[in-house]
Amino acid sequence: MTAADSGAGLLAPGWAGAEAAAETTDTAFLRALLDAEAALTRVQSAAGLAPAEAARAVTQAAEPARFDVASLAVEARGGGNPVIPVVAALTQAVGEEHRPYVHRGATSQDIMDTATMLVARRVLAVVLADLERCARALAALAAEHRDTPMAGRTLTQHAVPTTFGLKAAGWRALVLDARDRVGRVRESLPAQLGGAAGTLAAFTAYGAGDATALPGAYARELGLAEPVLPWHTLRTPVADLAGCLAFAAGALGKLAADVLTLSRTEIAEVSEGRGGGSSAMPHKANPVRSTLIAAAARRAPQLVATLYGSLVAEDERPAGAWHAEWEPLRDLLRLVGGAARDAAELAEGLRVHADTMRAHLDLTRGLIVSERLSAELAPVLGRARAKDLLTSLARRAYEEGRDLAELLAHEPKLKGVDVSALVDPSRYTGCAGDLTDRALERR
Amino acid sequence: MTAADSGAGLLAPGWAGAEAAAETTDTAFLRALLDAEAALTRVQSAAGLAPAEAARAVTQAAEPARFDVASLAVEARGGGNPVIPVVAALTQAVGEEHRPYVHRGATSQDIMDTATMLVARRVLAVVLADLERCARALAALAAEHRDTPMAGRTLTQHAVPTTFGLKAAGWRALVLDARDRVGRVRESLPAQLGGAAGTLAAFTAYGAGDATALPGAYARELGLAEPVLPWHTLRTPVADLAGCLAFAAGALGKLAADVLTLSRTEIAEVSEGRGGGSSAMPHKANPVRSTLIAAAARRAPQLVATLYGSLVAEDERPAGAWHAEWEPLRDLLRLVGGAARDAAELAEGLRVHADTMRAHLDLTRGLIVSERLSAELAPVLGRARAKDLLTSLARRAYEEGRDLAELLAHEPKLKGVDVSALVDPSRYTGCAGDLTDRALERR
Amino acid sequence: MTAADSGAGLLAPGWAGAEAAAETTDTAFLRALLDAEAALTRVQSAAGLAPAEAARAVTQAAEPARFDVASLAVEARGGGNPVIPVVAALTQAVGEEHRPYVHRGATSQDIMDTATMLVARRVLAVVLADLERCARALAALAAEHRDTPMAGRTLTQHAVPTTFGLKAAGWRALVLDARDRVGRVRESLPAQLGGAAGTLAAFTAYGAGDATALPGAYARELGLAEPVLPWHTLRTPVADLAGCLAFAAGALGKLAADVLTLSRTEIAEVSEGRGGGSSAMPHKANPVRSTLIAAAARRAPQLVATLYGSLVAEDERPAGAWHAEWEPLRDLLRLVGGAARDAAELAEGLRVHADTMRAHLDLTRGLIVSERLSAELAPVLGRARAKDLLTSLARRAYEEGRDLAELLAHEPKLKGVDVSALVDPSRYTGCAGDLTDRALERR
Amino acid sequence: MTAADSGAGLLAPGWAGAEAAAETTDTAFLRALLDAEAALTRVQSAAGLAPAEAARAVTQAAEPARFDVASLAVEARGGGNPVIPVVAALTQAVGEEHRPYVHRGATSQDIMDTATMLVARRVLAVVLADLERCARALAALAAEHRDTPMAGRTLTQHAVPTTFGLKAAGWRALVLDARDRVGRVRESLPAQLGGAAGTLAAFTAYGAGDATALPGAYARELGLAEPVLPWHTLRTPVADLAGCLAFAAGALGKLAADVLTLSRTEIAEVSEGRGGGSSAMPHKANPVRSTLIAAAARRAPQLVATLYGSLVAEDERPAGAWHAEWEPLRDLLRLVGGAARDAAELAEGLRVHADTMRAHLDLTRGLIVSERLSAELAPVLGRARAKDLLTSLARRAYEEGRDLAELLAHEPKLKGVDVSALVDPSRYTGCAGDLTDRALERR
Repeated sequence: MTAADSGAGLLAPGWAGAEAAAETTDTAFLRALLDAEAALTRVQSAAGLAPAEAARAVTQAAEPARFDVASLAVEARGGGNPVIPVVAALTQAVGEEHRPYVHRGATSQDIMDTATMLVARRVLAVVLADLERCARALAALAAEHRDTPMAGRTLTQHAVPTTFGLKAAGWRALVLDARDRVGRVRESLPAQLGGAAGTLAAFTAYGAGDATALPGAYARELGLAEPVLPWHTLRTPVADLAGCLAFAAGALGKLAADVLTLSRTEIAEVSEGRGGGSSAMPHKANPVRSTLIAAAARRAPQLVATLYGSLVAEDERPAGAWHAEWEPLRDLLRLVGGAARDAAELAEGLRVHADTMRAHLDLTRGLIVSERLSAELAPVLGRARAKDLLTSLARRAYEEGRDLAELLAHEPKLKGVDVSALVDPSRYTGCAGDLTDRALERR
Repeated sequence: MTAADSGAGLLAPGWAGAEAAAETTDTAFLRALLDAEAALTRVQSAAGLAPAEAARAVTQAAEPARFDVASLAVEARGGGNPVIPVVAALTQAVGEEHRPYVHRGATSQDIMDTATMLVARRVLAVVLADLERCARALAALAAEHRDTPMAGRTLTQHAVPTTFGLKAAGWRALVLDARDRVGRVRESLPAQLGGAAGTLAAFTAYGAGDATALPGAYARELGLAEPVLPWHTLRTPVADLAGCLAFAAGALGKLAADVLTLSRTEIAEVSEGRGGGSSAMPHKANPVRSTLIAAAARRAPQLVATLYGSLVAEDERPAGAWHAEWEPLRDLLRLVGGAARDAAELAEGLRVHADTMRAHLDLTRGLIVSERLSAELAPVLGRARAKDLLTSLARRAYEEGRDLAELLAHEPKLKGVDVSALVDPSRYTGCAGDLTDRALERR
Repeated sequence: MTAADSGAGLLAPGWAGAEAAAETTDTAFLRALLDAEAALTRVQSAAGLAPAEAARAVTQAAEPARFDVASLAVEARGGGNPVIPVVAALTQAVGEEHRPYVHRGATSQDIMDTATMLVARRVLAVVLADLERCARALAALAAEHRDTPMAGRTLTQHAVPTTFGLKAAGWRALVLDARDRVGRVRESLPAQLGGAAGTLAAFTAYGAGDATALPGAYARELGLAEPVLPWHTLRTPVADLAGCLAFAAGALGKLAADVLTLSRTEIAEVSEGRGGGSSAMPHKANPVRSTLIAAAARRAPQLVATLYGSLVAEDERPAGAWHAEWEPLRDLLRLVGGAARDAAELAEGLRVHADTMRAHLDLTRGLIVSERLSAELAPVLGRARAKDLLTSLARRAYEEGRDLAELLAHEPKLKGVDVSALVDPSRYTGCAGDLTDRALERR
Repeated sequence: MTAADSGAGLLAPGWAGAEAAAETTDTAFLRALLDAEAALTRVQSAAGLAPAEAARAVTQAAEPARFDVASLAVEARGGGNPVIPVVAALTQAVGEEHRPYVHRGATSQDIMDTATMLVARRVLAVVLADLERCARALAALAAEHRDTPMAGRTLTQHAVPTTFGLKAAGWRALVLDARDRVGRVRESLPAQLGGAAGTLAAFTAYGAGDATALPGAYARELGLAEPVLPWHTLRTPVADLAGCLAFAAGALGKLAADVLTLSRTEIAEVSEGRGGGSSAMPHKANPVRSTLIAAAARRAPQLVATLYGSLVAEDERPAGAWHAEWEPLRDLLRLVGGAARDAAELAEGLRVHADTMRAHLDLTRGLIVSERLSAELAPVLGRARAKDLLTSLARRAYEEGRDLAELLAHEPKLKGVDVSALVDPSRYTGCAGDLTDRALERR
């Protein structure tokens, strides 16, 4: 048994098999490290600091399949980061004459940070696509159920009616908020290039006329943003990335929490398209997608806390804060990647049981519209009398197991009032429809 | 002894006495709750849903000094939030004829969330001002020390030279990043208005023609942003607030961490303007401002994790996730408020010991420029011979306690090379000056 | 408006008014700081290092009412901790001849840590009492409902039957686990005494024969445990305290989560004795105690993370890690104190609706016992045929809306099998009763 | 590129190649899952519930090499946990006649939890061994340097002298505290067996006389502790495990933080036996072991927060809280496993530079003993005059760059006092030696 096989995701059905997982494997990171090295030599070649052949040779050699990722991992122990053995191996992999041009002028962190941004950029593209898919499916649900009444619930209890359309529109609003935040951060991810202490000094020593032009050229070569300063210990990019991922996890977590609640055997107002089977009970249809999203949402905030904590990075390279970023950031990327996939599937497959929603509106025997009755009967009866009447009828409804509508119908003081309209929960959804329309205007 | 006195900040020298603390006391929150209630009645009055006198009466009654915050706190236990007793007390405080118009149509969360945004808006103004102060002081330091060389340190060890100007410019860049994020979020803080389940239904029941116009009017009345949807369980505003505060804490934490390191007795390259005394040792000048900022930076990420976790808010009002936001959000606001104050003082008072910085550049006996020597001697000696020479001289420098410059001067192979320029650490600061200039262009 | 009033708990209905809150106010901490100072002088007096009158004078002066906690809080900014101004004020409060004996030989952290342990010891006594109360009430529920069948739910879906007795016994087991952990930690809380760098050097300088005897004497004077070493940067006591509080919060959080679920309008198998009213909906009975416990359980883990993080305390006193402990530890103490109070009330008042539990067992039309049928029919029909039969009947039960019992009764292959007993969910509770008995044996 | 290769540890030099990593791979978990399944059948066979051949067949088939862990990981998505596909595959792997006895009566969580405890038990054995190794090395350092004076530092500044022996003894005390906590938890790790809802009902249905005996038998078969109740949602074992791992990470983090500080180029009082090389600067000897331990210590608290959060596990199996445990628990096990390995190496290889320690004691020109002088001169000069004298001499020492000893020697008032002894920092280490001895008595 070797350490090399703990990345299949056996403990992580939330991301196993997801595209985000494939983009964040050790091999994917190795590829990004090699991409970063190759681009570095190419950029120096373009600036006249290295021969074109060296750039070609390094680019050609920078192929992950040529290296043993497990050995590199263990060798990384020596210096505390994987770039050192990767550089050594890449240097060996090119002809002797090109070796001086591998990693020249750079520091490990230039490569590691750049590679991480490359990986993040790739994963966020997948995340964005899945968030869009999810939002589209939720828009369709919101439009279809614009006027489907259901119980609004607060602190677990029926409060007043709402609509499933408004609920789905709210889910979508959060997903779009996530999309906007993730999209914005994705565009801002910068390359890293500064040399040992972020002064670009070595590039000057190797002959660069204006070394400050190199980071921009490097960023363009890799499709990343140009940094104003080397950010070895100015970790804004990592913090921003962390923040948008925490947001996305939480936004999807809200959707999942609601689906879990509404899926309960007693509630059953929605169900996942394809529930998960149980090993012992053939009849069970578990809300598995929601469960896995919920699990991701429980973990993300603490992973993000570690990354925010690493903003406190002393000196020109910190002893620990930087190293503590790598795994949590990868974890976040694949957790959110997996959750976005699951959320898209969940939203696309969600079955909505409008009849059950309607039926539940009567569970409180009409008390779910007591707020409306207070408002509407006050002008008729006077505020104090209206309140007394409702309080007494509410108690009777509860104790005698009778419907409020029925009790109200027998109330002599309300002759001439159209009680049946007032107590119909499906007619007390306020502006839910208009709010849904407004929310759906957002693109 | 009562519970009413744990808010003086005896355990929190980081925020005790700060303006942010004054803006986040229980009384400040009570004031904001009352402001939110009064604005609600005024807005309904403007919409023809309440008499103008009621609006005036509620506004007049909504004065924190008229209420006992400690009693309200204990009464909040009954329903689980402070709005319920505040509404009861405020209702009592107005004439009987105005009582129907207190809190009409709203739900507790409308008031609580709106009040929280009001408090946040006030605190963030203070934070922004202190971040600006801090950034200005750091800009002055960066400009003054544009060319002050010092050791660049990585993993605690001298690496290559840098400048104090670049370091200060980096601190400032982080502070400006914090300012931008805090400023953006401050402008986006929305009012909350939705009624019991976010459908605005009660306002319609009370006669509003278009209740969807109310949240916008309410927001304008309070100087807050208009929400697209009621956000009782769409907690983007809280998450965004949390994110920018975590960032600010971490950004200031980086400054503090560096000052703490550079203040160490053995390093002493900077010192806080006014160090804190010790109870036992009269000579000690502790870096107290940095210490307190560092403490805030240790706490903020976990507080933010709780707030991100509350994005997972089930139903139309969650049973716990919402309640778990209040204290951590207040804690963050005053921690960051205190840290920004301390950071401004720290930056304004920081004393820089350029001579000590220069002296430390010689601590490694010239090895701090070994990177440069590798680069510059390779063309002279050939790469392999240059490397061998440097390795052997480095060992001798270390073992014999001699300077690399001296050893190089005696090296026959280097006759004719201006070794003294090559080994002068203050001439190997790369683009530090240019990078500092570039960073200072940002406003 | 001053900063002095943010401690009433307006944002914290979970602990407002609780005994744990009263024991953790700023004044309570001030009292503990003064207790620690007074005991220090008394112990030195007993050791012949200070006159008896000085000990009496300091003890007499060490009365919180004589000091202004808000001013002390602000003065604490200077040196970064409240002990410095407390010592200054206490020194002023005694006659000039006694002043040399105030705080003599000690460092701020000796006093602060000792005071924190005193406060913790007082709060944990309250917590323990409430955990015991809660456990007693749960034991009564478990015994009473030993054989009350209800649905066992996994991933939100009915799985197989269980009993409410077993559920309550499980809650109690967690509460007892919390009690054991809290109780054990409470007994271990040590006094702190080491002087400036933990060497006890100053006491020797002031004439102590064997200064190593002082910490033990000090601990005995205060009713705390004797430390093996000064623990200024060996934070085992704080970490242990954090751990047991996190555990307690989570243990109570499980109880709250279950009550919240079982209280849902659609489930309604339990209800809190006295639900919280709503400001807008008179009929609502919110599970407020559970909600507030749930909120505490959401916050505790992150507070504990900060405290575990402070184990990393550099040097002989860290610049930040120590300061970051104070507020989170107080927060945890009062959050858990409040939650334990709420949990005791919750358990004592919980109403159990056994008939609703029984009714829900039929919601899946018998499928809740499909596991049993698989087991019991296999020997009768053969395993493969039994499985086929059940699969087909389960589908029919679901699609035709008929009970499994009815379908089975018409199944010719099962003539002679007592189907009605097999499909009765209340007869498929396995060892729930025995397990309940076993769990209740624990004291 | 597949997802199967992200487990080599390329991003985790802290655990790559460690024994703890090998014990926590996906394959190691698969092995544990299979061990748990095989033991389940054996135990049922011993109880007469399954044929002996079935037990043998399942045991034989339960060999990880026969299964494809990557496929199982992806298949786990369906039901949300890996046990379902593992059971399916294991069932296929045995002869048809034995299939009914695979996983019989159990639920996925029985197997998953049991496997996790098996893995934890194996890893903790490794951790304990490394903690012991580390403690032994620290004991030797403490004994050797019992009387090696060095500066005690508080808030980054020299305070009073201490000894390296006391510092090392303190590190050891924390390591032993970790060992004790880890060891205690290791002995308590229980097997899990309860069936679908924790009632053991299926075992009874399959004919068990007293199914409550099965969990104990199962535990004994696997070398785990017997649980009082099934703990599917009573997560004490996971919380306890989390707590001891957080403690261990923090305890080692303190050691690392001190070594990092003391290794700084300007301080250089200790150095790691084998520092890590840098990719750009051949002379650098980075404290890599400390850096990686520090990184682990930054991450552990937040991972633990997630696990404590999962105590809040609703129903008989929660939808998310359980699933959120798996990866963080594995992360913690291998992080702490790696950190313990690194700490053992660090302690064994640590080089102590006593001469540098001694030299630094003079950095404050004698002020490091000002506390002593205050104490000792007060009886000679009177307290007020002693204080005035010291204050003025301290200022002169600082401003004139002269040693306090020299200034005191010229002080007429101190004729006859042996000033040189008083100002020798190495004679002001208080009880450091005795405390070290006392601490080393602990085994």
